[in-house]
Amino acid sequence: MSILAVGSLAFDSIRTPYGQVEKELGGSCTYFSLAASYFTEVRVIGVVGEDFLPAHEDVLRQRGIDTSGIEHAKGKTFHWSGEYGANPNDCQMHALELNVFESFQPKIPAAFLQSEYLFLGNIDPVLQAQVRAQIKNAKLVGADSHPFWISTKKDELSQTIRNIDIMLINDGEARQFAGDHNLLRAAQKILANGPQALVIKHGEYGATIFFRENAFGFGKHPFRAPALPLDEVRDPTGAGDAFAGGFMGYIAAQGELNREVLKRAMFYGGVMGGFAVERFGTERLLNLSQDEIEARFQLFRELTHLE
Amino acid sequence: MSILAVGSLAFDSIRTPYGQVEKELGGSCTYFSLAASYFTEVRVIGVVGEDFLPAHEDVLRQRGIDTSGIEHAKGKTFHWSGEYGANPNDCQMHALELNVFESFQPKIPAAFLQSEYLFLGNIDPVLQAQVRAQIKNAKLVGADSHPFWISTKKDELSQTIRNIDIMLINDGEARQFAGDHNLLRAAQKILANGPQALVIKHGEYGATIFFRENAFGFGKHPFRAPALPLDEVRDPTGAGDAFAGGFMGYIAAQGELNREVLKRAMFYGGVMGGFAVERFGTERLLNLSQDEIEARFQLFRELTHLE
Repeated sequence: MSILAVGSLAFDSIRTPYGQVEKELGGSCTYFSLAASYFTEVRVIGVVGEDFLPAHEDVLRQRGIDTSGIEHAKGKTFHWSGEYGANPNDCQMHALELNVFESFQPKIPAAFLQSEYLFLGNIDPVLQAQVRAQIKNAKLVGADSHPFWISTKKDELSQTIRNIDIMLINDGEARQFAGDHNLLRAAQKILANGPQALVIKHGEYGATIFFRENAFGFGKHPFRAPALPLDEVRDPTGAGDAFAGGFMGYIAAQGELNREVLKRAMFYGGVMGGFAVERFGTERLLNLSQDEIEARFQLFRELTHLE
Repeated sequence: MSILAVGSLAFDSIRTPYGQVEKELGGSCTYFSLAASYFTEVRVIGVVGEDFLPAHEDVLRQRGIDTSGIEHAKGKTFHWSGEYGANPNDCQMHALELNVFESFQPKIPAAFLQSEYLFLGNIDPVLQAQVRAQIKNAKLVGADSHPFWISTKKDELSQTIRNIDIMLINDGEARQFAGDHNLLRAAQKILANGPQALVIKHGEYGATIFFRENAFGFGKHPFRAPALPLDEVRDPTGAGDAFAGGFMGYIAAQGELNREVLKRAMFYGGVMGGFAVERFGTERLLNLSQDEIEARFQLFRELTHLE
């Protein structure tokens, strides 16, 4: 089944203790769709500027991603610049130039309106809601957010997540959104008026999915997929989006949604997030094999599996 | 099989957002031995002052713990006072009065010299090594440490851990000891000249055990036991010691040491650490039933178990 992904397409300038890159293809939609492309067909909706060349689009097209929904606007593509320290969780932002992304109004081609899976990347929650409303027959809708939206548009975000199925955010965002440091209580507060399930990503410690009472006809015990310990986190950029891509991609590729599918999706999310951070930018997500993904999944499973 | 545990016996004054207690029985040896007592026989070695009453010793004795190795010295018992914020990882120390603990010289009764399992709690690594050397037939030796010893006696600690089997420390201590923020690399550095295995405790995210190449005749893939999400962490004091008690206690209770035993020990460590923080001080560790422990183990296993 195809996933429709809406989010940012960007040029990222990144510095980490392992090196640096200048204006490489990035953005939430890019990481998400590359990761998801190993599981299912992906269509992207986003906006780019005149500096976004056919070669950039080819990066996505070579993974079979449908780029016909990318809008080419006058101006420059969204540019982000940041630097990570020895602790991959410490990131100092140097520049945030929204450019054409500032006035982004997602336009959904008629051919995409029947998409069964929808991922709303980190964009204005008002736009997320507008896109959600147009994909009337979606079987499953996932959404990310960002501390900026939680602080500036909390009410709108609260409204948006009432109409999605699974929200995916990180520890800090969950605490900020719920106003509670305890993650279990934070999850309960977010789920009380929101989605069926909430995935909280813990970075190097994995991720936990929390369910509303009787969500999807099952639940309610949480499930946790611990991340594989990596000896090098060369570039943390895009880890959360790659997690979401593996998670949603695996779900979309299955015939049905049950608890076991969601559990495995958590592991595949962790697998793709782990691959993303092993190399700079999108490099590792461009040429994975199914065997590499399966081998990592098995390693990952062994990591916590009792006989 | 009996475990011999050496460490601190203390009075703790604790304040958290859930309440406060004054001079309640605590200390690494107390938490460790209470947790381990649900799995096997435990003997403790420690020092207390004149304010340590028979009623305090009875807390341990009621759990079947052999307290004949507790030395009663002139002066006051070790006293610690601290306050935790909404984030259980933020702890502000108000007082640290070593008292009789300052000149602690562990004396091992002859009856304890043949102990097969030994746990060296957080004390001076020089003392840890002295105790280790006396328990010549130990089948398995575990040891904890503390940022204070890592910063003031790093060389001595490095020497001590060459003669132990499993070191158990937390994220911050591992990073500090190895001088590396990356936990996998930090583990490799500590294991290179040290113990067979290293357990790194991640607080609310669980714990990972790393192995030397071919440690115990198996290894080398790490194993991670994720912690159960708790809605209330009323008092984080003693969580790491209770983890060590569940971990070592389960191992000592088994007939043999294999990879599956170590994996399950990681889960039982998490179970006991989780119980410890649900109530103030040692309260929750005093009256657990085997059924409660097994039920928690199963919940915990379900948390990450794929079919």
